[in-house]
Amino acid sequence: MLTSKHNPAIKQIRALRQRREREATGLFFIEGIRNVTEAVQAQAPIEQLIVAPDLLRSQFAQDLVEQQRQQAIPILEVSGEVFASLSSKDGPQGLAAVVRQQWASLADVRPDQGLCWIALNAISDPGNLGTILRTGDAVGAAGVILLGDCTDPYDPATGRASMGTLFSQRLVKATWAEFSQWFGQSGFNLVGAADSASSHYRDYAYPQPLILLMGSEREGLDAEQQAQCQALVSIPMRGQADSLNLAVATGVLLYEILAQR
Amino acid sequence: MLTSKHNPAIKQIRALRQRREREATGLFFIEGIRNVTEAVQAQAPIEQLIVAPDLLRSQFAQDLVEQQRQQAIPILEVSGEVFASLSSKDGPQGLAAVVRQQWASLADVRPDQGLCWIALNAISDPGNLGTILRTGDAVGAAGVILLGDCTDPYDPATGRASMGTLFSQRLVKATWAEFSQWFGQSGFNLVGAADSASSHYRDYAYPQPLILLMGSEREGLDAEQQAQCQALVSIPMRGQADSLNLAVATGVLLYEILAQR
Repeated sequence: MLTSKHNPAIKQIRALRQRREREATGLFFIEGIRNVTEAVQAQAPIEQLIVAPDLLRSQFAQDLVEQQRQQAIPILEVSGEVFASLSSKDGPQGLAAVVRQQWASLADVRPDQGLCWIALNAISDPGNLGTILRTGDAVGAAGVILLGDCTDPYDPATGRASMGTLFSQRLVKATWAEFSQWFGQSGFNLVGAADSASSHYRDYAYPQPLILLMGSEREGLDAEQQAQCQALVSIPMRGQADSLNLAVATGVLLYEILAQR
Repeated sequence: MLTSKHNPAIKQIRALRQRREREATGLFFIEGIRNVTEAVQAQAPIEQLIVAPDLLRSQFAQDLVEQQRQQAIPILEVSGEVFASLSSKDGPQGLAAVVRQQWASLADVRPDQGLCWIALNAISDPGNLGTILRTGDAVGAAGVILLGDCTDPYDPATGRASMGTLFSQRLVKATWAEFSQWFGQSGFNLVGAADSASSHYRDYAYPQPLILLMGSEREGLDAEQQAQCQALVSIPMRGQADSLNLAVATGVLLYEILAQR
């Protein structure tokens, strides 16, 4: 059992807090019984489980660890103190994992999958992204296409906000140019959200297969992106604010699309 | 101009980061041109403006400060460094304010105001609360009733998530017992959200006047709260997750209520 916070293996896991390190290794860190269970159930490529026997009280979780051990998944046992040094939770549960990132490509984005795909342009807030993954899971979306300079879906804050749904949604990363080129031959319909759009989001019949395109928190969609869309829809607003939170706006639109099926 | 971070006036403002201090003084701190502008426009009781002339570039904001000076609002000028010690932003804009909290009472909750009222039971996340205030503003809700042990709406994180809508929504704080007693004679209809509810949220005709009751992030509504509701509605979920983010669920329901008007 590792008892030193300064052990190189522990330092390496802790380094996964940095996006640069996650990108260099293709790995990420998840913690908590719920998230690790979701990873196992989704058959995510777990490289290593991290277990603190002092902290891990749940029989369910102990059985899960045993099961993984029998499937030859490497298990790193650490002291409660070392575990706490890896954790960003107040009351760490004693179970975490290092998981290999899984990226799909645009070629994997096909018309016969789920309610729709969600494309996000330059989303910057990890909490918003995690919340959108959670809503995407709830409506049965296929996955999220991250366009341009987006926050990292493997950021721990995204994982927390996704409440274990990170593994249920496929993830694709592309530049706008790559997306735009692929889109022409994809067979998909692209519908974007814009405050200025004349179509009320409830009066529009969402075509299939569909990619719902949402702009960034600050800038929305630019003129070129709006031009690429078959249709732009707007969500009415009656108050002082000039926009909704991005995850709320995406949720309102996804539930309208779901209601039309 | 104050140039010391240790000046007692500055320390007192900084102490408003603590909920205890906010509750003891009845004051709170807002920052940023947008938030201060919203406070002025909403005629919120501003006790003091805090201005860092080194940082405040915007002519619009400088005019706003001048206008407030003419209306005898106390103005505290501070150095950029002192301002940064008060700010929780990376690039502080040099404008902030200390504002008196405004609480309405249950007696102020009347049937003729806005789309509906939103009652939140034991909401714990300031970001969720701020996002719900922002959505409440967008749909034209009257305000938010905070039931039981809720996060503080005057927490800076709530203010940030509310995007300046903190002043457009009335705020009421009550225990469940107080609310429950008042409710009987209020003339309102109470509709709650629950995963287990048999009414699909789109098939239900929301009565007027309406209070939409949402449970806490972790626990939802308890049996007594559910029993108090005329109706319970559920939002369908198709995926792994067993719930939506609270602010997303509230947004989906509020936009359904708006669509029915």
